[in-house]
Amino acid sequence: VFAADARRWIVDVLAALGAPSSAAGHQADQLVEADLRDRPSHGIQRLPVLAERIRKGLIEPAAVPELEWLADAFLRVDGHFGLGPAVAVESLDALVARSHDTGVAMGAIANAGHLGMLAPYLERAVQAGVVMMAMTTSEALVHPHGGRVALIGTNPIGIGVPTGDGTPFILDMATGAISMGAVIAAAHRGERLPEGVAVDANGVPTTDPHAARAGAISPFGGAKGYGLGLGVELLVGLLSGTALGTEVRGTLDTEHPVTKGDLFVVVDPSVLRLEAVPGRAARFLAEIGRSPTAAGASTSVSTPGRRSRRTRAQRLAEGYDIPLAVVEQVRRMHDGLARGAVSA
Amino acid sequence: VFAADARRWIVDVLAALGAPSSAAGHQADQLVEADLRDRPSHGIQRLPVLAERIRKGLIEPAAVPELEWLADAFLRVDGHFGLGPAVAVESLDALVARSHDTGVAMGAIANAGHLGMLAPYLERAVQAGVVMMAMTTSEALVHPHGGRVALIGTNPIGIGVPTGDGTPFILDMATGAISMGAVIAAAHRGERLPEGVAVDANGVPTTDPHAARAGAISPFGGAKGYGLGLGVELLVGLLSGTALGTEVRGTLDTEHPVTKGDLFVVVDPSVLRLEAVPGRAARFLAEIGRSPTAAGASTSVSTPGRRSRRTRAQRLAEGYDIPLAVVEQVRRMHDGLARGAVSA
Repeated sequence: VFAADARRWIVDVLAALGAPSSAAGHQADQLVEADLRDRPSHGIQRLPVLAERIRKGLIEPAAVPELEWLADAFLRVDGHFGLGPAVAVESLDALVARSHDTGVAMGAIANAGHLGMLAPYLERAVQAGVVMMAMTTSEALVHPHGGRVALIGTNPIGIGVPTGDGTPFILDMATGAISMGAVIAAAHRGERLPEGVAVDANGVPTTDPHAARAGAISPFGGAKGYGLGLGVELLVGLLSGTALGTEVRGTLDTEHPVTKGDLFVVVDPSVLRLEAVPGRAARFLAEIGRSPTAAGASTSVSTPGRRSRRTRAQRLAEGYDIPLAVVEQVRRMHDGLARGAVSA
Repeated sequence: VFAADARRWIVDVLAALGAPSSAAGHQADQLVEADLRDRPSHGIQRLPVLAERIRKGLIEPAAVPELEWLADAFLRVDGHFGLGPAVAVESLDALVARSHDTGVAMGAIANAGHLGMLAPYLERAVQAGVVMMAMTTSEALVHPHGGRVALIGTNPIGIGVPTGDGTPFILDMATGAISMGAVIAAAHRGERLPEGVAVDANGVPTTDPHAARAGAISPFGGAKGYGLGLGVELLVGLLSGTALGTEVRGTLDTEHPVTKGDLFVVVDPSVLRLEAVPGRAARFLAEIGRSPTAAGASTSVSTPGRRSRRTRAQRLAEGYDIPLAVVEQVRRMHDGLARGAVSA
């Protein structure tokens, strides 16, 4: 499929379900961007879940987010259960504008649907010339270091830094060692997991994806990654007034209202009045990219966001595969809703 | 030794070298706090290096930091080469005060000496009721993921969150898999390193500490830890206008002016007007601490800062060991400087 076609299908489906064109567009962009970057778990395959959540009233596609500045540089957002990307983009744009005055601005979002990948928001910020950090909570799938019960989300962290040369630094990483989507995919394909990414129900490390589903995902990087993921859980949960641990729900299922939160920090480097900011970053990243590789490495040293950008450019030009079952499911929804919308 | 005695020695030495009592006290607190938490690499053993840097004019112990609000919530600090902890505490206190008005405040520090551990600053913030994030850059000792040359600092990240129950969440972690201090200590003791923490000069993973010194420390947690450490390098270096990569100098040596930077973010949760903030965090951390342990685990599940707090309490009450060579070195400095101060 081509991105433009996928985007149109998604917009049509969401519009038929009651989403205004702007909200539908932001949600469609987010699903398409994930597929363009080869992250299908956050791509168009999520559309049936989104549609089901809308039908059940768990998502209000026409919700108007409520933005309130609790202090000069602190924005609280109540998404009123709207589509996540629509709430996030409106919040981000408000933070970017404020950061020009205050230097730094923080936004804490509650009651917004799943945001999808963080990278597109980071890129939107970077294109506006600002630095951005983002964190969000998610369903408890990760065990604490030294523990065995899933109590912490895969809580991603994002960092975006403008470099001025068209290849910004974009880090978008979960604090779990693997995604549950990848565990489920391995189970379907009958493959083993890499070592060290999950434990079984008894807390024993396992490479069996079925055992991992009954157990928990491990934090990446041992005690440090655990500390970081827990730090994200606390920062986001407390500052956005949203749930912690096993009370986080409503991003993967079609049963529960969303209870996760999101935290954005935007910094306007122009307040520093430093000429050299973008050029320095680009030179440093280029130095890393040119540096000698590890023994046995088959590719040059990469920097965060670079590979994903190449994949995106190629898929945008040449199109990309999505599973036939997903295409057919989306087409059925599309045809059915179009008829429904006409008959309504 | 007992903490109070060690603190007095350090204050006396720094005072004799020209530090005002407040700056000497903050620096002494920082060295003593590291030893109390069993982090000797950041403890009193650093005093001879500090003294030598002062004698050479690389540290100006009586410097008055220059704090400038570039925007309502963005503070730039020029430490004028003063003692790191003195600059950091003054900056932090200004950020905490500002956060009551703006909700969030960021401080970017340049030209300040080595800060030491981040944990004491996080605790100072938490005691004032605010949430804090901290990042600093350091000498390039870590290779990029897939690379072999040390181009990135061990760049620590700190997160402090008040919990309201006397045991705040305090995460203070380097983004390198091991500290160079631990590598050097293993070399002195003739011990091997753990697997996966370093590479030799050819980029081959090694457990030989001598080979590691000639090579580079690995990022913790593979590609993700690499991305995070690089993100810290860019955020701190760009927003504080300080050096990147191999240009970062002057925290471990007695030759170079300091070129690293520090970044603090403070958030006042009281702007949220949420009653339950501290209690929720304490309950969640307690749930994690009570949760079932991994197979074969010998201790209960811990949360960041908890073990360090126990160690500190014990060492504060009972005293602690420091190597005789360090004691004698400090005593010689103390006696010599006291005589010099009298004779001058």
